[in-house]
Amino acid sequence: MTQHVRNGWYLGAWSDEIGRTLRQRWITDIPVCFYRLPDGTATAVEDRCPHRRYPLSLGHLDGDGTLQCDYHGYRFDAAGVCVGVAEQADRPKAALRRFPLVERDGALWIWPGDPDLADESLLPDTSWLTDPGWTHVHGVVPLKARHLLLVENLLDLTHETFLHPTSIGNAAVAATPIDVTVHGDRVDFSRRMTGIEAPPFYEKSCGLTSPVDRWQDGEFHPPGIFVLHIRIAPTGTEEPEGFHMRVLYGLTPARGNETHDFYALGRDYLIDDEELTEFQHKQQLAVMQEDVDALEAQEVMYATDPGGTVESSIRSDLAALRGRRALAKMLAREQRAGHGTVSA
Amino acid sequence: MTQHVRNGWYLGAWSDEIGRTLRQRWITDIPVCFYRLPDGTATAVEDRCPHRRYPLSLGHLDGDGTLQCDYHGYRFDAAGVCVGVAEQADRPKAALRRFPLVERDGALWIWPGDPDLADESLLPDTSWLTDPGWTHVHGVVPLKARHLLLVENLLDLTHETFLHPTSIGNAAVAATPIDVTVHGDRVDFSRRMTGIEAPPFYEKSCGLTSPVDRWQDGEFHPPGIFVLHIRIAPTGTEEPEGFHMRVLYGLTPARGNETHDFYALGRDYLIDDEELTEFQHKQQLAVMQEDVDALEAQEVMYATDPGGTVESSIRSDLAALRGRRALAKMLAREQRAGHGTVSA
Amino acid sequence: MTQHVRNGWYLGAWSDEIGRTLRQRWITDIPVCFYRLPDGTATAVEDRCPHRRYPLSLGHLDGDGTLQCDYHGYRFDAAGVCVGVAEQADRPKAALRRFPLVERDGALWIWPGDPDLADESLLPDTSWLTDPGWTHVHGVVPLKARHLLLVENLLDLTHETFLHPTSIGNAAVAATPIDVTVHGDRVDFSRRMTGIEAPPFYEKSCGLTSPVDRWQDGEFHPPGIFVLHIRIAPTGTEEPEGFHMRVLYGLTPARGNETHDFYALGRDYLIDDEELTEFQHKQQLAVMQEDVDALEAQEVMYATDPGGTVESSIRSDLAALRGRRALAKMLAREQRAGHGTVSA
Ligand code: FES
Ligand code: FES
Ligand code: FES
Repeated sequence: MTQHVRNGWYLGAWSDEIGRTLRQRWITDIPVCFYRLPDGTATAVEDRCPHRRYPLSLGHLDGDGTLQCDYHGYRFDAAGVCVGVAEQADRPKAALRRFPLVERDGALWIWPGDPDLADESLLPDTSWLTDPGWTHVHGVVPLKARHLLLVENLLDLTHETFLHPTSIGNAAVAATPIDVTVHGDRVDFSRRMTGIEAPPFYEKSCGLTSPVDRWQDGEFHPPGIFVLHIRIAPTGTEEPEGFHMRVLYGLTPARGNETHDFYALGRDYLIDDEELTEFQHKQQLAVMQEDVDALEAQEVMYATDPGGTVESSIRSDLAALRGRRALAKMLAREQRAGHGTVSA
Repeated sequence: MTQHVRNGWYLGAWSDEIGRTLRQRWITDIPVCFYRLPDGTATAVEDRCPHRRYPLSLGHLDGDGTLQCDYHGYRFDAAGVCVGVAEQADRPKAALRRFPLVERDGALWIWPGDPDLADESLLPDTSWLTDPGWTHVHGVVPLKARHLLLVENLLDLTHETFLHPTSIGNAAVAATPIDVTVHGDRVDFSRRMTGIEAPPFYEKSCGLTSPVDRWQDGEFHPPGIFVLHIRIAPTGTEEPEGFHMRVLYGLTPARGNETHDFYALGRDYLIDDEELTEFQHKQQLAVMQEDVDALEAQEVMYATDPGGTVESSIRSDLAALRGRRALAKMLAREQRAGHGTVSA
Repeated sequence: MTQHVRNGWYLGAWSDEIGRTLRQRWITDIPVCFYRLPDGTATAVEDRCPHRRYPLSLGHLDGDGTLQCDYHGYRFDAAGVCVGVAEQADRPKAALRRFPLVERDGALWIWPGDPDLADESLLPDTSWLTDPGWTHVHGVVPLKARHLLLVENLLDLTHETFLHPTSIGNAAVAATPIDVTVHGDRVDFSRRMTGIEAPPFYEKSCGLTSPVDRWQDGEFHPPGIFVLHIRIAPTGTEEPEGFHMRVLYGLTPARGNETHDFYALGRDYLIDDEELTEFQHKQQLAVMQEDVDALEAQEVMYATDPGGTVESSIRSDLAALRGRRALAKMLAREQRAGHGTVSA
């Protein structure tokens, strides 16, 4: 079983997924119960009752925000502290394990590891999700493949040429090298294609005719956040002219070798064109399905070959290799901390 | 994988489930083949042919009680001794592993462990199953959860308040403490509710109006037998007046973390009222389904958290904790015996 | 998990299953990608791209025989050597793992182990598959049981009496002893039934009436090839008169405890009678399905009893025991070689 980095922010849910009902979602092999308090504050607790581990998400939420386990009636206040059990006089010493949770720009970020290390400044800028000059669609796709394969998929976009040739990929992607920069754990890459043919998706999305310039600037914030900055424009157009798009991916380990593949796709043009929005959303989901199919087939090959064969790597793997190394370092750091003192 | 106590009586089948055909049922991770000899004697043998482990339950039973393996024709007499193989002259030295089996009051009790320890006096009184003053319904429900969770479910009936609020549970159950007594391995508890509101099931079953007195007296005969004595009557009624019901549960580990949940529900009033019988049976199955759903959700939380979190326990857990301890002791005793000499 | 002998020829595919498309099949726990080069040469490579293990069988095959991985575009020539990656200048040092593959008489034989040990002379004579005096049908049936159980099934045909009583089995089979001869790893057996009743299948297939003589001569070429020579004729008929049939079984471990059960059933009489061919094919598949059902039930009994019970064996087990021993020896030899020097 893959081990997951837990000291890091993961996209736990979109804000509009969580309301005044209880919702279970597995995150880094932990069952999490999400809900909102009466004042709207989103909350995430381990979905195991401290009494006999019954899922709290099968219990119910009172009007005042008290959460009740519906197996034997333990009740927890907004802070997760047990305030009693039904009519019995006992008031057990018990508290829920609550996870640091940040709600920002329509997303709920969860920190499944050591709460003392949770640092909001590690979250990337997502203001474009609420910027009135932008519009976006979002959702989440289930993936039966380990987190690392999704990370590597996004850090090596040459695969667009082969896996997505009818939408976002064409020969230019694989043919154009990337620049990679590493800042601490973070890994950035940049691919600048000039005077190329417009891939079908962008042709239809932007009404462009070839040749075009196309930029792909990726930021991987390990363990689980990836932002892709896309710019496409008729060849030679100067910034800030041109069409800008952005994709936020939340790569969140679920349970075993399954992963939540959260996405938000935004643009800064024709933001009121709902037909275009719908078209882009449909395309985004089609592209993600191609990735899901590929990664699930790849997962079988990893799961059945745990020892691993010697890998061949090339220049275009650089960002993915750096990302893999960043994750390995974080995991090692976390495991060391687990055996000693955790310090921020 | 959970380990099961095997030196103990388990409900293996209801008498009416076993006839002159072969029937496989897994018990404590052992495949068992049940059948009856021509004189009606019920028999239980390991469902693996001593030749090449083919399931005997796929073979056939001759009119004289000879059991034939239908892979290569080994034949076994009523005592389980191999009496030959088809027309070949060889008569292999081979015998079936037969399990101690007691048929009593319509139930077949099996002892999957050391036959020398099988002691009929350990069986609880089940004469009410055949008492002409009583009537009952019975059956078995499959449960995908470990045996211990079902044991604890029955030893802590405060869950009726939360899990079965539309039938047998109401606030009084969780609010009323129990008395617990331990006799050797056996664990008894008693809850006496006085002047309470009648839960819907008893209201309809007995035509009672509140207030009522309700008694719940449980006996756990580990590893796998639970008997619940129920009495309900208008408040202040003296024994032996009032409505009496009894539930026998056979908690039989099946395969892996699956359990057979045998039940028999009896009453001593209106015993010829078939409509009432049907109503009670339907309610019993509905209540058991609520338990099954809860325990299967709980099982996931145990299976994915093998290390276990620190548990919070309260007064009402006492019987369940004693039951858990009794099972642990029996298992330890059995494992010690497995490495040394088994003595009764 | 069962370990498989890999230094041996296995039936990998029938020639007509493999064309100019890519086809995945698991063999001894290895995913294999089969295809043909433009000149028709059949090829088998490990179905994991040396880059990031994506299944090559999801890629595509160019007109010139170049195989392209459709995740990031690695390209491999007919010899399996990487000849480049899309338009990038890099030419990775990478090669596919190719398996020795022999195409003969309509069958593709694969050697999943050490290629230096692959020796074509170990293949049995299969010329009857293409002999103009013979006709045959062939195919493959999936089996969810370990390879050894299928080997033992074929080496002890007394099971025909019990498992196939409506087609190829009758009392005479189990009643007639076999002669067994061992030549190195190979195990042969011979059963000669004289003046017996014709089993239903042969009655209909050959228009015979009882009494008949029936011969069953089997050859097991471990690890995975079994040939059965069948002769049936009116009692007293002298060779070479009579009806001859032959069955080739390719017993090929697939993935985990699953096995490919390849078969070819041939005869030397009425070879143009297509109705008869169809009847025989249907019967063959019905018989194999009876075996599949039995072996899958038996597999459960082995999988859940890994320690194993003491087995009872009889005279008719001799060939199967010799076959089992041959496989154990081959495996031991292979495992020793894996820790030292492999020599042919
Ligand atoms: S498991 Fe939650 S109250 Fe018992
Ligand atoms: S397995 Fe029962 S006779 Fe062979
Ligand atoms: S996995 Fe085949 S080219 Fe990358």
